Amino acid sequence: MSNHELLGTSIIAFSRSQKGGKVFHASNPATGKDLEQPFHSATHEDLERAASMAERAFLPYSALPAAARAAFLQAIAAEIEATGDPLVARVMAESGLPEARVRSERARTCFQLRFFAGILEEGSWIDARIDTADPSRKPSPNPEVRSMMRPLGPVAVFGASNFPLAYSAAGGDTASALAAGSPVVAIAHYSHPGSAEIMGAAIQRAAQALGMPDGVYSLLFAAKSEQQVGAELVRHPAIAAVGFTGSRAGGTALLRLAQARPTPIPFYAEMSSVNPVIILPHAMRARGEQIVAGLHTSITVNAGQFCTNPGLVLLGADQPADDFASALAARMSATPSTVMLNQTIKDAYAAGTSKRGKAAGVRQLAVGDGESATALFEVDAAAFVADPSLQDEIFGPSSLLIRANSREQMLQAVDSLEGNLTATVHMEEADLADAKILLQRLEKKAGRIVFNGYPTGVEVAQAMVHGGPWPSTSDSRTTSVGGRAMLRFVRPVCYQDAPAEMLPVELRDGNPSGILRIVNGKYAR
Amino acid sequence: MSNHELLGTSIIAFSRSQKGGKVFHASNPATGKDLEQPFHSATHEDLERAASMAERAFLPYSALPAAARAAFLQAIAAEIEATGDPLVARVMAESGLPEARVRSERARTCFQLRFFAGILEEGSWIDARIDTADPSRKPSPNPEVRSMMRPLGPVAVFGASNFPLAYSAAGGDTASALAAGSPVVAIAHYSHPGSAEIMGAAIQRAAQALGMPDGVYSLLFAAKSEQQVGAELVRHPAIAAVGFTGSRAGGTALLRLAQARPTPIPFYAEMSSVNPVIILPHAMRARGEQIVAGLHTSITVNAGQFCTNPGLVLLGADQPADDFASALAARMSATPSTVMLNQTIKDAYAAGTSKRGKAAGVRQLAVGDGESATALFEVDAAAFVADPSLQDEIFGPSSLLIRANSREQMLQAVDSLEGNLTATVHMEEADLADAKILLQRLEKKAGRIVFNGYPTGVEVAQAMVHGGPWPSTSDSRTTSVGGRAMLRFVRPVCYQDAPAEMLPVELRDGNPSGILRIVNGKYAR
Repeated sequence: MSNHELLGTSIIAFSRSQKGGKVFHASNPATGKDLEQPFHSATHEDLERAASMAERAFLPYSALPAAARAAFLQAIAAEIEATGDPLVARVMAESGLPEARVRSERARTCFQLRFFAGILEEGSWIDARIDTADPSRKPSPNPEVRSMMRPLGPVAVFGASNFPLAYSAAGGDTASALAAGSPVVAIAHYSHPGSAEIMGAAIQRAAQALGMPDGVYSLLFAAKSEQQVGAELVRHPAIAAVGFTGSRAGGTALLRLAQARPTPIPFYAEMSSVNPVIILPHAMRARGEQIVAGLHTSITVNAGQFCTNPGLVLLGADQPADDFASALAARMSATPSTVMLNQTIKDAYAAGTSKRGKAAGVRQLAVGDGESATALFEVDAAAFVADPSLQDEIFGPSSLLIRANSREQMLQAVDSLEGNLTATVHMEEADLADAKILLQRLEKKAGRIVFNGYPTGVEVAQAMVHGGPWPSTSDSRTTSVGGRAMLRFVRPVCYQDAPAEMLPVELRDGNPSGILRIVNGKYAR
Repeated sequence: MSNHELLGTSIIAFSRSQKGGKVFHASNPATGKDLEQPFHSATHEDLERAASMAERAFLPYSALPAAARAAFLQAIAAEIEATGDPLVARVMAESGLPEARVRSERARTCFQLRFFAGILEEGSWIDARIDTADPSRKPSPNPEVRSMMRPLGPVAVFGASNFPLAYSAAGGDTASALAAGSPVVAIAHYSHPGSAEIMGAAIQRAAQALGMPDGVYSLLFAAKSEQQVGAELVRHPAIAAVGFTGSRAGGTALLRLAQARPTPIPFYAEMSSVNPVIILPHAMRARGEQIVAGLHTSITVNAGQFCTNPGLVLLGADQPADDFASALAARMSATPSTVMLNQTIKDAYAAGTSKRGKAAGVRQLAVGDGESATALFEVDAAAFVADPSLQDEIFGPSSLLIRANSREQMLQAVDSLEGNLTATVHMEEADLADAKILLQRLEKKAGRIVFNGYPTGVEVAQAMVHGGPWPSTSDSRTTSVGGRAMLRFVRPVCYQDAPAEMLPVELRDGNPSGILRIVNGKYAR
């Protein structure tokens, strides 16, 4: 069997499911036609087996040395790279995304895996702390306490529609959960099951080659109509946390299930974000034309199908802002249509832009042709503040200009914002005083604040935050990209007066791991 | 006005409430009589004002340098110490706790405040990370990203019944929230409003003396029947997180409110824990008598009214274990009754022990006299596994011995456990192999694992974990004691390509704060 052959059956630990569940096909969004390979939705038994195997794998997997988990992540990256052009071709066929984007997304996916491997090899991320005993302390001696992060348990991962590689079967949630020491049960997005199968099989091969515990990874298929598979997985007692990327409605529904369990579990949903861009007056005068070009690209690249797509632009009501609006409208109107990811997204985009055009006080400045017809709208700040539905995400190449005729109006619009993944400020030196006031308010509204740039493009780096206040995510304390992503899947465990043999190596005397620790309140290696 | 005078009105920022709401009195549990001072439950207007003042104080307070917040915490500790003996007398009258315990709890409360001040002064806790730009990177240059923890917003704190100082108006949740940069709106426990008022007024004085923003702290009173005050606070849009210590029923009800808000917020409840103690065979033989003495103290001290009270003891079914059970029963029977904290707790204890005595397979080994009559029960491991209600917390000086006639039975009992704050293992060198198997399982069940000791007594230290899997707390990823407690009230915020003037001082070039940061993946000062 080649490393890209498709069987259409769920990956259950080191084996494959029977062909039992509802059959479905991926569709090529460029042609509208189904692709040949049939896929079999996971049955109740498949899910039960994947979850119980994950549970069984948890103890041995979480007990592995960090170096062994790092080697596993490295091996997954190598296996993915070895799948070569057939993976690229399959992703293109299932998503309609252009080849260069698919290749760069695959590079990102492998980089992510190696990034987390590097954090494991360095080791300090587990937050080891030691307070030594003091038998002479008055009024009573204090015990020795040592603590560090330990994995929560098996993690369920829901693949995203818009990143068939980087947020899918072997994407960021899978990589950070495996890094943290948690087995993963992933559900492939129904839009690109073949891409997911190639990636999932790469993980399976790496796990077998490195002798990982059977059950460390499973990948379940589910037709679009088979939503009970995901619901059942979230409710399964073996599952200890969930990573989800998708719609606000879907995320909220699953979040409620996670909260209503007899034992509630953390549910990390990245849901919807409109990523406001604020252009301050001096920046508008100094760089208006340049910002038009950058913003146009950020709104329209890959048909705007990004969670960081700039869906709101807050600007003044003066002549430079009028010129900016006209120039952006001209560029938007002239943007050719491209293929969108799937029929659901296409339909939602058409409905969203149609509704937006009819909203009270909204003027349509630009409308393109075709399925991803660009749409630029405009509304006065007061009308924006009055209508919360204008903050609903329209997933696609659309944006809404909010025209504020005073600084107060601009601040009111900012204060009325829901939570977002990002907020962007364009400013010049002369805007500094305004920008400082703005920043204090934006910090409450977004997880990442971009200056003089554009929100699309999320760097995989230790400092990155890809998370934000509700409803952009379900948990603003966390990020799904960057070094902190692993922290979603761990909890602190404390060992009091433990015999040396009972301690994890990271907490032992002499610091055999060489990691940074807090010892009696001081950071030390 | 002296620093311990009681007015009986809620503390609303820098002022006091009107005497509007339902009047109630604290009761002296030793006499059963009401204490003289009337207290006025907060009205809707009081709560509205406290919450909106907290919201208004958030921006200026969160913008203060860490050193200013540290000085505030130090000043609170000094103000509390300055209240002297009248505070001690009031706490004793409202709680029935003995003087030595009250004095040590006050010392702990002040230590906690200074502990968090010390973490602020050191500064590295905010997890600063910097990834510098690389304009030469292919295929596209990467931006500069810098991130650190920022406070969530105003925090609501619910005081505990059993720690009138250390988990109350100026207790651990208040201290860690104020340290993290969040204003606090606390609700005093109806059992000890006078203790809370003295502590709250100490915070108010410290805040005014140090020029903290008006609204940084409020303390609301609510009679036992006025539960809507707490519910309204949890639902208030100004509140960004909640710290709660109390019953499982109460915690779960408020948790559901927090989750059902239009904008859900983190809710940190410490609820119920039975803190299993496991005595392995060699430890039983070597130190059985000694463990009887230590365990008896841990079960009965302060009438067992601790969240870390050892409510389950897992031991063998052989002769040494029989001797242990008899000796513990004899000590328990001979333990004099002491005053319990309040009527509700007294009633629940009586009902809980009565129900436990009638449960299938349960034998009562010891029963004391009086309101805090000790109660020791025994059950076979198989019957324990079969009846989850035997894991219900009985708050008071009671414990249940679980007799396992094999290693397998012991492991089955452990696997059947719900989540707990602590688990304790008594072991000797010869128990090592068993203990290792046990530890892997216990790590999933508890936040702190104690070896050859007792779970009561929670050290305030960087490494401490006072948290655990559901239902011991609502969020096993967190702790309410120790350095990590501050992390409950923050979220990461990222600044991309920010002009130097727009960055928090902790993220600036040259590291003016001298804190530990992760720069391009490496830890550096």
